[in-house]
Amino acid sequence: MDLFVASGFTKQTLNLFLLFVLIIIFCINIPVAEARIQRYKWEVKYEFKSPDCFRKLVITINGRTPGRTIVAEQNDTIIVELKNSLLTENVAIHWHGIRQIGTPWFDGTEGVTQCPILPGQTFTYEFVVDRPGTYLYHAHYGMQREAGLYGSIRVSSKEPEPFTYDFDKTIILNDWYHKSTYEQATGLSAIPFQWVGEPQSLLMNGRGRYNCSLLTGTSTEVASLCNATNPECSPFALTVVPGKTYRLRISSLTALSALSFQIEAHNMTVVEADGHYVEPFVVQNLFIYSGETYSVLIKTDQSPSRNYWTTTNVVSRNATSPPGLAIINYYPNHPSRQPPTIPPPGPLWSDIAPRYNQSQAIKARQGFVIPPPLTADRMIVFLNTQNTVNGQYRWSVNNISLNLPHTPYLISLKNNLHHAFDQTPPPVGYDYKNYNIYNVSANKNATTSSGIYRLQFNSTVDIILQNANTMTENNSETHPWHFHGHDFWVLGYGEGKFDMYNDPKKYNLVNPIMKNTVPVHKYGWTALRFLADNPGAWAFHCHIESHFYMGMGVVFAEGIDRLGRLPSSIMGCVRH
Amino acid sequence: MDLFVASGFTKQTLNLFLLFVLIIIFCINIPVAEARIQRYKWEVKYEFKSPDCFRKLVITINGRTPGRTIVAEQNDTIIVELKNSLLTENVAIHWHGIRQIGTPWFDGTEGVTQCPILPGQTFTYEFVVDRPGTYLYHAHYGMQREAGLYGSIRVSSKEPEPFTYDFDKTIILNDWYHKSTYEQATGLSAIPFQWVGEPQSLLMNGRGRYNCSLLTGTSTEVASLCNATNPECSPFALTVVPGKTYRLRISSLTALSALSFQIEAHNMTVVEADGHYVEPFVVQNLFIYSGETYSVLIKTDQSPSRNYWTTTNVVSRNATSPPGLAIINYYPNHPSRQPPTIPPPGPLWSDIAPRYNQSQAIKARQGFVIPPPLTADRMIVFLNTQNTVNGQYRWSVNNISLNLPHTPYLISLKNNLHHAFDQTPPPVGYDYKNYNIYNVSANKNATTSSGIYRLQFNSTVDIILQNANTMTENNSETHPWHFHGHDFWVLGYGEGKFDMYNDPKKYNLVNPIMKNTVPVHKYGWTALRFLADNPGAWAFHCHIESHFYMGMGVVFAEGIDRLGRLPSSIMGCVRH
Repeated sequence: MDLFVASGFTKQTLNLFLLFVLIIIFCINIPVAEARIQRYKWEVKYEFKSPDCFRKLVITINGRTPGRTIVAEQNDTIIVELKNSLLTENVAIHWHGIRQIGTPWFDGTEGVTQCPILPGQTFTYEFVVDRPGTYLYHAHYGMQREAGLYGSIRVSSKEPEPFTYDFDKTIILNDWYHKSTYEQATGLSAIPFQWVGEPQSLLMNGRGRYNCSLLTGTSTEVASLCNATNPECSPFALTVVPGKTYRLRISSLTALSALSFQIEAHNMTVVEADGHYVEPFVVQNLFIYSGETYSVLIKTDQSPSRNYWTTTNVVSRNATSPPGLAIINYYPNHPSRQPPTIPPPGPLWSDIAPRYNQSQAIKARQGFVIPPPLTADRMIVFLNTQNTVNGQYRWSVNNISLNLPHTPYLISLKNNLHHAFDQTPPPVGYDYKNYNIYNVSANKNATTSSGIYRLQFNSTVDIILQNANTMTENNSETHPWHFHGHDFWVLGYGEGKFDMYNDPKKYNLVNPIMKNTVPVHKYGWTALRFLADNPGAWAFHCHIESHFYMGMGVVFAEGIDRLGRLPSSIMGCVRH
Repeated sequence: MDLFVASGFTKQTLNLFLLFVLIIIFCINIPVAEARIQRYKWEVKYEFKSPDCFRKLVITINGRTPGRTIVAEQNDTIIVELKNSLLTENVAIHWHGIRQIGTPWFDGTEGVTQCPILPGQTFTYEFVVDRPGTYLYHAHYGMQREAGLYGSIRVSSKEPEPFTYDFDKTIILNDWYHKSTYEQATGLSAIPFQWVGEPQSLLMNGRGRYNCSLLTGTSTEVASLCNATNPECSPFALTVVPGKTYRLRISSLTALSALSFQIEAHNMTVVEADGHYVEPFVVQNLFIYSGETYSVLIKTDQSPSRNYWTTTNVVSRNATSPPGLAIINYYPNHPSRQPPTIPPPGPLWSDIAPRYNQSQAIKARQGFVIPPPLTADRMIVFLNTQNTVNGQYRWSVNNISLNLPHTPYLISLKNNLHHAFDQTPPPVGYDYKNYNIYNVSANKNATTSSGIYRLQFNSTVDIILQNANTMTENNSETHPWHFHGHDFWVLGYGEGKFDMYNDPKKYNLVNPIMKNTVPVHKYGWTALRFLADNPGAWAFHCHIESHFYMGMGVVFAEGIDRLGRLPSSIMGCVRH
C-alpha cells in the first residue's frame, strides 16, 4: 500500500515536472524569438560642445549630441531609463515614427501624452519597435530639440528585405544655431517679433564647420569661442570599401531648413521612406524635410584612389547658411584626406519643380503595398497661415493657433478633466470660396486655442494640407508635417488651391507610399488618408521647431475609452 | 398673553440682535487690526532687458527685474500667486528673512521645502510677515536668482520705532553677469573647472552701466547688444527733499561680491540689520554682504544746489567690476544732472580691518535686546573649505559638500522617505588639532552627501563658522552665511582658528544683534547661537550663488513631528 501510493505519487510528480519543464522551455523561447528587450540608461545634461567649431551649450545624452543610434530588431522592446540632469529644466523625448501601439503614454510629447520629466527624476520609456525601418528620437518640449537632444533609431527586419546591401550606415542631418533656444523662443514671442534667422551651419552626424573668421573680437576671444582645429568639428567621414553596396539611412531633424543631400559622383537609389519600402528610383539630389527619413543604396564603384564629397544645402529658402560637408572615404585613403575637387553645388534653392517631382516619385514598393481604403469617412482641410495674435506672430491652422495646455491631453481626456483644455473643436476647413492663398490674408488676426479634433475610432480620415501666402507678399514656405502615432497614405500633391471636386479624382489609390512626415509645398496642397485606429491623443504638426512653437499644429484623439489605466509616471504635473 | 409672548420674544430677539452686532463689529475689527491680507499675482518669464545697457535674457516678475517691492505691515498675510511662464524651466521663490513660522512649506527652497513649480503652473505662497523690518525675495532654484528674479520686502511696524524719519526708500544692490546662468553652472560643474569670474557690472535698484566700448565687433553688432542710451540703464536717481531725514533700506543680493556702499558727503547712521534694531552707529562706508539688509538714516543737509553720487564697490576680492553709480537727486535739480564731482572712491578692497570693525559694531539696540540663552545645548563647528570631488571643484563644510536631493527634505522627513536622502548625519566638527586653516588643505578631496543635522526641538545650538584657506595659496574668501527659518544671535567674530576654551569667554551675551545672514571673514570665525524652535527643514548656506551651487551649505531639521499635513501643492515632484 505504501509502495503503491508512493509509486503513484512519483508518476504524477514526474508528469507534472515534465509539463513544467515544457512550459519553462516554451516561455523561455517565446521571449527570445519575439520580444528581445533592449535596455538603455541615458543621462541628459548641458555641456559645452563645438559641433560646428563654435563653442556653445548643448543638451547631450551620455555626453553626446546626437545621441547614440538605437539599433534594434523588429518587435524588440526598447526600454530607456532617462535621467534628467539638467539644472532647472524639464525634458521629454519623442520616438519619432514609432506608433506606440498600446503605449500612447510613451510617445514623449509634452502637453499631449505626458508631463515633463523634472530635474533629478528618472523616467522610463518602454515601447515596441513593431516595424523595420529608419526612425528618430528627439526632445519634444519647448525648443529643446535644437539644443542638440536628438538621435536615430534603426530597426532591422525579421523578413528578407526587397533589396540587398553589404553595409548599413546612418547619416543624420541637422541645421545649427549659435543662439540658445531660450533666446530664440523669447524673440519669437516678443513684440515686436524677432525672427531666429537662418541657421549658422548645417550638420551631418552632428558635425559642421562654421567659418570662425566671421567672428569679431580679439584673437583670444575668437579662439576661446571658435576653434577650427577642434576635433569635435572635423568633418564626418564615412569610410567605405570599394566595390560594395551601402545602405545609407538619411534623416533630417533640422530646426528650420529643407535640405538637399548629395554624394559626389554617386547616384542614390531611394528604397525606403519613413519605414516603408519605396518603389526604387534614382536621384542625384535627395530632398529631405525635417522629420523625414530615407534609405538610399549607393555603390562604391568610383575610383578608390581618392575621397568624395558629401554635401547638404538649404533649399526652399534663400538661406545664408553655407553647405554642410562630409567625406565618403574610400578605403585605404586617410579619412581626413580632402577630395581633390570642389564640393558639388546643391540645386537652385528656388527651384520647386525637382522637389515636387521627388515627392510625387515616392510610391510604395511592389509587393509591399498596403492598400488604402478607397473612401474616407470624413475630410478635414488644414489651411496653413501666418498670423498675428494680440500683436505676436503666430502660425495657424484654419486661423487657430495651437496653445498646448500643460495638463497633457491624454490625461485630461482619460480622466474627463474638461477644464484642462478648450472644449470647442477647431474648424475642419476654411473659407474655400473667398480665401486667396496667393495673397497676404486680408485678416491677419488669428486666435489661440487648445481645442482638439476627436475622431471616431477606426474611421478613415482625409487630411488636405493647404498652403498659402505668409504675411510677406509673394512668399509661401514649405512645411513638413509630422503625425504622431500613425502613418498616413500620401494620396497626392498639387499646386494652388485644392479642388475638392476634381483633385480627389487624381489620388493615387493604387500604390501610395505611407509616411509619417510629408511636405506641403509652397502655394500647394498635399492630400493624406489615415485610419484612426490607435487609441490615444496624437500631435500632428509642422516639424519646423519655431513653427510648432508658434502654434502650427493640431491634436487628434481617438479610442480614449479603450485605454487602460495610464501610468502614474506620466502624470507628474497633474494636481491631485 | 399674546402681548407678553410677543414682548418677551421681541426682547429676546433684540438681545440676540445686539449680541450679533457686537460679534460682527468684533469680527470686522480683528481682521483689520491684526490680519490684513495682501494678494499679489506674479507672472515669471524670460525677457530681453538691458540692466547695465548690455542686452541679455533675464527672468522678470510682471515684466520687471528686480520685481516690485512688497510693502506690508507687521502681521499682514502675504499671498503671492506665482505663475510660471518660463518655457521649459521650473521655479521656486524664497522669502528671505521671513521665518515662515507655521508655514515651513512656503519657504520656497527647492529641494528643502518644496518641489519646483512647473511651467504653466500657478503656485500660491501664503505666509505672515510677523515682524517689521527689511527683507528680500528671490529665486531659490539652480542659479536663477542671478538671472534677475529678486526683489525686496518692506514690513512697517505697528509699534513706534526708536528713530524717526520723513521718508522711507529702498535700494537693492546686486552684481551682474553677461553670461547665462546655464553657461555659468555648466562651467562650474565642468572638468576642468571654469570659474564664473568677476561680475561685469554692479547694479543699484536694477540699474548699472557697462562700458559698451569694451565690446568688440562691428558697430552694428555692438549697437544691437549694448546701448548706452537705453533708458533701462540710466542711473538710478533717488530724489530727496533738502533738510529731511531719510531711511534708506539697503540690501544686497549679489551673486558673488561683497560690497561697500557710500553716499557722497553724507554720513549714514545704521539703525536696522536683517529686521532688528541696531544700537545706532555712524559710517561713511556701509559694508554689506549678499543676503544682508540694513536700514540707515541720512540727513539731506548738504547744499541743495547740486546732486550727489551714490556708489557701490566690490570689497574683499580684487575685482575688475567698475563701481556702481547712482544719484542722490536734491530737489529741484534734474534727476539726471550729473554731480560736479568725481564719484568718491570706495575703500581699499583688501583692507579687512574696517569690515571686521563694522561687523563687531553691530549690536542690538537698547530697549530692543532679545537676550540669548546663556548656554547652548550643543555646538557645531563648520569648517569652510574649497575642495575637489571626483575632479570637480566644490565647496564643503567639514569636508562634506551638500548635494541637494530632488525630493524636498520637508516631504521626505514628514513622510519617512528614508531612501530620499543620506541618513548618515554630516560631521559636527573637523580635525581641530591638526588642520591648518592658513594652508591649502593637505587632502583636497571631499565627499558629497545629502545628509542633514537633526536638532532637538527647542534646543539651543551654537554654530561656529570657521574660515580657512582655499585651494589657492594665501587665499581665503569672505562667505555670507544665510539661515532660513531663524534669526541667530551673533555672539562674536574672531581671527584665526576658533579657540573652543577661550573664545566663548569673549562672547557678547549682553546685547548681541540677531540676524539671518552673517559674514565669516577671511581666515576668521563667527560664532552664532539660535533656538531650534521652528518646526521644519531649513537651509543654512553661503549666499554666494556659485558657492551654494557648489555644495556650500547644510540643512537642519527640527520638530518635524509637530507639523500638520503638508500642502499637496509643494509635492509636485514626489512619486506616488
